[in-house]
Amino acid sequence: MRISELSRQTDVPVATIKFYLREGLLPEGQRTSPTQAQYDEGHTARLRLIRALLGPGGLSVASASKVLAAIDDPPSSLHDLLGVASAATTAAIEPGPDHTRVHELMRHWGWQVDEKDTGSHAALETALAALDSAGFELPPGMLDHYSDRMQSIAEHEIVNVPQKSPAAAVNYVVLGTVLVEPLLLALRRMAQQELSSRRFGSGAGLDELVPDTRGRISSRTRPSEPRPSEP
Amino acid sequence: MRISELSRQTDVPVATIKFYLREGLLPEGQRTSPTQAQYDEGHTARLRLIRALLGPGGLSVASASKVLAAIDDPPSSLHDLLGVASAATTAAIEPGPDHTRVHELMRHWGWQVDEKDTGSHAALETALAALDSAGFELPPGMLDHYSDRMQSIAEHEIVNVPQKSPAAAVNYVVLGTVLVEPLLLALRRMAQQELSSRRFGSGAGLDELVPDTRGRISSRTRPSEPRPSEP
Repeated sequence: MRISELSRQTDVPVATIKFYLREGLLPEGQRTSPTQAQYDEGHTARLRLIRALLGPGGLSVASASKVLAAIDDPPSSLHDLLGVASAATTAAIEPGPDHTRVHELMRHWGWQVDEKDTGSHAALETALAALDSAGFELPPGMLDHYSDRMQSIAEHEIVNVPQKSPAAAVNYVVLGTVLVEPLLLALRRMAQQELSSRRFGSGAGLDELVPDTRGRISSRTRPSEPRPSEP
Repeated sequence: MRISELSRQTDVPVATIKFYLREGLLPEGQRTSPTQAQYDEGHTARLRLIRALLGPGGLSVASASKVLAAIDDPPSSLHDLLGVASAATTAAIEPGPDHTRVHELMRHWGWQVDEKDTGSHAALETALAALDSAGFELPPGMLDHYSDRMQSIAEHEIVNVPQKSPAAAVNYVVLGTVLVEPLLLALRRMAQQELSSRRFGSGAGLDELVPDTRGRISSRTRPSEPRPSEP
């Protein structure tokens, strides 16, 4: 098919497709003349993948390029693949100078994460430092609870890595790391809404909270005490 | 203290502080002359909070403004607060035309999330659609597992909402929603690394995966089979 048809099928503007071609995210089509090329189903699938990585995956073009390269040319072990997926999406975080707290937590949880994987060390350190600097104190035991539940999730994920074909494993690991993140966060938000609704009642709806002219949110509803929790 | 001292204490450039003042994120100091103002500890704390929201929290200035407004002028119920925190960070997602699948999942899980909270519906729908369009199939039972673990996390979070002071509750809910996300994702990545290391062996280190001149990642290590998992 021609680039216009590829654009129509995928709902991606021709100019955007040309940008992906220039950036090497999308492989060139088969040249049929100096100004025309033919594209196939492979291009359609790749284009969908690129859009998923750049959109909901939240990757930059440079990071998406690394992830796609890992899919095209997989590293030699599954463990390395996880590293590529992780590095592609944590590259923006500079390694902090001090990982003492992260190392203490890892000992506490019995984890032995590779020292060389500074990306995930730095990401955890940065997340903890952000809570500190915002003056946010996690309730006692909460960090252990988070870690326990995330370990349970990771166990299911690692057990399910398809080992028959390298291509399937690569897709599973890279996309599972990047694209499942928004899914988990959406589920947490919904679960919070569900449980707070059960515990505190739904109260005023969000549509009654309107931004005023200063862009601040004010409530139009009458002031009321939060309902007591259920016994 | 003067703005220069505020800048020194918080490590935020004066020009940036002035930008936050103009945007209304940071309240004005006490004027001592037409060109000078005095700032106090409240400004230091607020500035740290702004940096946490804009940096690791990943919020835009507009979203941070809404979150700060909710902290300054809390809505009338805790449940609404969750909505504000959620809306501030999912505003970029347009409500999808079809939430059928989300509604089916909610029935399946016994959740009754408010229809009016289109933000979290749309976030989940978008996340699922991204997996579809990338051709990523979750292993059987995985979505239930994700939802179960996220519900367990949300339960601990909602139970721990401090109910003594409204200000404490607001801080906990808003910051807990926004700033804990990077923490959870970092923990998932580390748990994946830990478990894949146990299951597949660590293999080649990340530092041996170097981008070549085309910006693609290639492995310098010898090709090797993934190690069999431990019995």
